[in-house]
Amino acid sequence: MADLPKKVSIKEEGPREGFQIEKGPITTARKIELIDALSKTGIKHMQIVSFVSPKVVPNMIDAEEVVKGLTPQPGVSYTGLWFNDQGLDRAIATGRLEIKGNISMTASAQFLKKNLNRTPEQQLAVTRGMIGTYKERGIAIERATVMAAFGCNFEGDIPISRVLENVDRLRALAAEQGVALTRVSLADTMAWATPLSIKRLVGAVREKHPDLELELHLHDTRGMGIANAYAGMEMGVARFDSSVAGLGGCPFAGHAGAAGNVCTEDLVFLCDEVGIETGIDLAKLAECGRLAEDVVGHPLPGSVMKGGTLRALRQKITEAARA
Amino acid sequence: MADLPKKVSIKEEGPREGFQIEKGPITTARKIELIDALSKTGIKHMQIVSFVSPKVVPNMIDAEEVVKGLTPQPGVSYTGLWFNDQGLDRAIATGRLEIKGNISMTASAQFLKKNLNRTPEQQLAVTRGMIGTYKERGIAIERATVMAAFGCNFEGDIPISRVLENVDRLRALAAEQGVALTRVSLADTMAWATPLSIKRLVGAVREKHPDLELELHLHDTRGMGIANAYAGMEMGVARFDSSVAGLGGCPFAGHAGAAGNVCTEDLVFLCDEVGIETGIDLAKLAECGRLAEDVVGHPLPGSVMKGGTLRALRQKITEAARA
Repeated sequence: MADLPKKVSIKEEGPREGFQIEKGPITTARKIELIDALSKTGIKHMQIVSFVSPKVVPNMIDAEEVVKGLTPQPGVSYTGLWFNDQGLDRAIATGRLEIKGNISMTASAQFLKKNLNRTPEQQLAVTRGMIGTYKERGIAIERATVMAAFGCNFEGDIPISRVLENVDRLRALAAEQGVALTRVSLADTMAWATPLSIKRLVGAVREKHPDLELELHLHDTRGMGIANAYAGMEMGVARFDSSVAGLGGCPFAGHAGAAGNVCTEDLVFLCDEVGIETGIDLAKLAECGRLAEDVVGHPLPGSVMKGGTLRALRQKITEAARA
Repeated sequence: MADLPKKVSIKEEGPREGFQIEKGPITTARKIELIDALSKTGIKHMQIVSFVSPKVVPNMIDAEEVVKGLTPQPGVSYTGLWFNDQGLDRAIATGRLEIKGNISMTASAQFLKKNLNRTPEQQLAVTRGMIGTYKERGIAIERATVMAAFGCNFEGDIPISRVLENVDRLRALAAEQGVALTRVSLADTMAWATPLSIKRLVGAVREKHPDLELELHLHDTRGMGIANAYAGMEMGVARFDSSVAGLGGCPFAGHAGAAGNVCTEDLVFLCDEVGIETGIDLAKLAECGRLAEDVVGHPLPGSVMKGGTLRALRQKITEAARA
């Protein structure tokens, strides 16, 4: 049935996405507790902090302490997020993060203005500069992201042609400095995607750039996250960002707020059940989901942490049959 | 892209599924308030009560009063649920419900035992009897349901062959009495389905019974509801049960509880965005979702009622562009 990948690589972004947006103060110790628990589930990639101004994101003021306090698990890559050289320097200075280059374009000029206060031309210049910085420092570029690839709250639907232009530009920018791009992330930053638009956009990018590995970053504001991820898998996409328990928004605050990334447990459950390997222990991960709720102090949207896994039920049934 | 239907028919089951399971007492007036609000959204089919023993389902003690108190909207079909002749008599006695025949088999013998305390042979006899009763009273059979069609908490995964046998049996039982079955509902009663198993089962049933119209009844306990519904749509399924705001479980009670049906607003949002007609006004429906939360007094899992519609955003963007 379609091109389901055999393995899927999941990057956990809950700590970074979640802790930056939560209203309540979360102690450094509790942030570390969740990160350490997640690192024992089989998750191999985790974005745990961002190095941004505490004026803009007060919750990330302890980014260095969080990194310093965690207990590194062998085989787990911990990463951070930054938007300029200063942030990159802070990340490098921790000495404990995997430093990989990331560049981005935004398919919506209006969102680019609101989000980073840049025009497309300025973003192009910044990206060119970052590629240069990475090159100078010998940092490989892991992925290029097209933000707002499906739609924008300020600009509306984003045509496929616009995303293709952005991918072309990213590749051209990298090529200018002799750098090859091998992976592009299509980010549904404001949750406009549907399974249909996922298939159409992934298909179009793949047709034009068959050599690029594609990944999806899917927000779940309108409940389409899992359906969108599965649509991606049916198109052969094998890399996803996700967020434990669906951390990253405040969907239960009673207002129309943006939700977090697609829930990691629900995504792993889906993979488990359709026979796609993730290397992640779903039972342990569901415990992390419940821990995340405890850490933030309010319910989070993940389903499997509440509904339970089928593997546990199957085991119970098998044992009952033996007895 | 695949066989997406042009129109989808959605049966709202929130009032029946939700009110029967909620712990808190809900007044008759508030039940009616939600039903009346739902009936103004463009929803054409609504299951609002069940006629069962108040000993088993105390919350349904006011079923007759709920039916008596509602303000019928032209074009809306209000239905009830029953499991025996006595329940059917009560439904008919209200004089305000659309009375349509419904028969069922359960693909899991163990669930049948737990749920209705019957063996498969007894269920066969009961179903035969109900077909007779419907025939006697001139009630057309609208649909036959195969419950636990994807998996069972007591029995595990359900093989496709078992579901096919159940469909065969239902058709044979109807044929015995000269009644034709035209529609079969595949019910994921305990939320074991994935988009992959939906496609496989729908494909298998359709191949063997190309003349049957198929519908899906999808519980959302593990967050797969929307992905499963979309998988059904890609296979051409055009009838779904759903539940406003995801009413029908207690997913936020902190225990592994079964959740309700797939959320109606999220399902309508999906249809709207991929160009499938439902006839339902999503903005009004999202208001009903928020009303449902108010009526039950706790958060419910629906996403779109919190995240907002894209149609509203598009309108705002268009208006801003004009100004």
